[in-house]
Amino acid sequence: MTHEATLPRYRVAVSVQIHPVPGLPEITPGDDLAAMILDAARAADTPIIDGDIVVVTSKIVSKAEGRTVELDDITPGAFASEWSQRWEKDPRVVEVVLAESARVVRQLGPVLITETHHGFICANSGVDQSSSGAHGRLVLLPVDPDASARTIRAGFAAAGVSAAVIISDTFGRPWREGQTDIAIGVAGMAPMRSYIGEVDPHGHEFRVQELCVVDEVAAAAELVKGNTSRIPVGVVRGVEHVVDDSATMAPVLRDTSRDLFR
Amino acid sequence: MTHEATLPRYRVAVSVQIHPVPGLPEITPGDDLAAMILDAARAADTPIIDGDIVVVTSKIVSKAEGRTVELDDITPGAFASEWSQRWEKDPRVVEVVLAESARVVRQLGPVLITETHHGFICANSGVDQSSSGAHGRLVLLPVDPDASARTIRAGFAAAGVSAAVIISDTFGRPWREGQTDIAIGVAGMAPMRSYIGEVDPHGHEFRVQELCVVDEVAAAAELVKGNTSRIPVGVVRGVEHVVDDSATMAPVLRDTSRDLFR
Repeated sequence: MTHEATLPRYRVAVSVQIHPVPGLPEITPGDDLAAMILDAARAADTPIIDGDIVVVTSKIVSKAEGRTVELDDITPGAFASEWSQRWEKDPRVVEVVLAESARVVRQLGPVLITETHHGFICANSGVDQSSSGAHGRLVLLPVDPDASARTIRAGFAAAGVSAAVIISDTFGRPWREGQTDIAIGVAGMAPMRSYIGEVDPHGHEFRVQELCVVDEVAAAAELVKGNTSRIPVGVVRGVEHVVDDSATMAPVLRDTSRDLFR
Repeated sequence: MTHEATLPRYRVAVSVQIHPVPGLPEITPGDDLAAMILDAARAADTPIIDGDIVVVTSKIVSKAEGRTVELDDITPGAFASEWSQRWEKDPRVVEVVLAESARVVRQLGPVLITETHHGFICANSGVDQSSSGAHGRLVLLPVDPDASARTIRAGFAAAGVSAAVIISDTFGRPWREGQTDIAIGVAGMAPMRSYIGEVDPHGHEFRVQELCVVDEVAAAAELVKGNTSRIPVGVVRGVEHVVDDSATMAPVLRDTSRDLFR
């Protein structure tokens, strides 16, 4: 294209493909996710290649890392017990949700919106009571999803594949019904696409200053993954991105001082 | 796949493709967007086909609908004038932002978060001062983005193509830096993918109850569109969806009574 040189950096004008990675077995602690994902993608005739962005549902990461708790091992405190009774919740689940939170952002009726120790704001600290592979077991978010992503990326690299990795989860949001998948961990790519300093053809600065491309990629991957844990990985191909070996989600987490809704 | 029958409805296990639609000219009032998009997609060797979801950036819809205002025609009121002076903003722009809003949600420092007449909560009522084709002109959101989507979808149908249409815009969000593309109008597809009543392999109800698939598709399309107005349309292919001729964004807009952050 002849106007290529005038396009802002990171411009993309090619098609994007998103491939599901089916066929992964039930994940257990210690599993080598990178190797399993590479094998499953190869078996599905869509091997992962250099430049791909591999989006991994946090739940299988948590299972591989042993981030589950048995409800029988939990003794709820007074706060969890009292509130649970009032709203017919399991006090042991509430106890775990509170333990996984740094701060309660909203507690209204049966709804508990918390800020996790990572800095994510979501319902129930992202604690998942469903699809845990057993009744009475909770799946927690990974302790450090950026580190989880780096481990998987390193596993790909050891097999000769240079790919970025996003750990995704399904969050609600204010103002809008329905949930969407967003990024909670990243490795190997800048989380933002910046237009700061760019001008449009008329000399105006762009209204959009920074796009959170990792959240858009996570949402895109959900379109092939679904939420059944049967297809927990999507491979996004063709999205131009800035390779960054030290990338983390930190730039995405808005500081409290800049937040009007916390 | 042998377990196909047990998958929840709307499950997708095929690849998704996202094609950019480049080559559209500068849009002017009265333009037939449907015909222009069909032509441009054909010229790019990626013709739109039955079952596609066509994501159209709201800005070109607004331009085709004449939803622009000249700053020279605006006389700011006292409220807009005083606040603008304090924060070095153009009082005419602020006047338009206020006129486009039903309610100010947050006004802090130079930041103005409003609820639009449609019910969207965003910065500056979605009023766009950049890339408007001329200095001193503002681009407003379409009056009825669902109707805009229906018009484009009807244009596709008249040409023999059955496709869903999403009108997208780029919004910020609480708690997270960076913006993402979301849906502000829809035609021809259910905006939500529901898991309500579904159970996982272990008999648990899914933690995720409803996914806002139109927002995920809008985010996915951004990956090929960019924000330069040069590629304002993306075609998303392979996303299973429920065809719904009377679909609107209404189910996505959370009622104030259910909202903890308004």
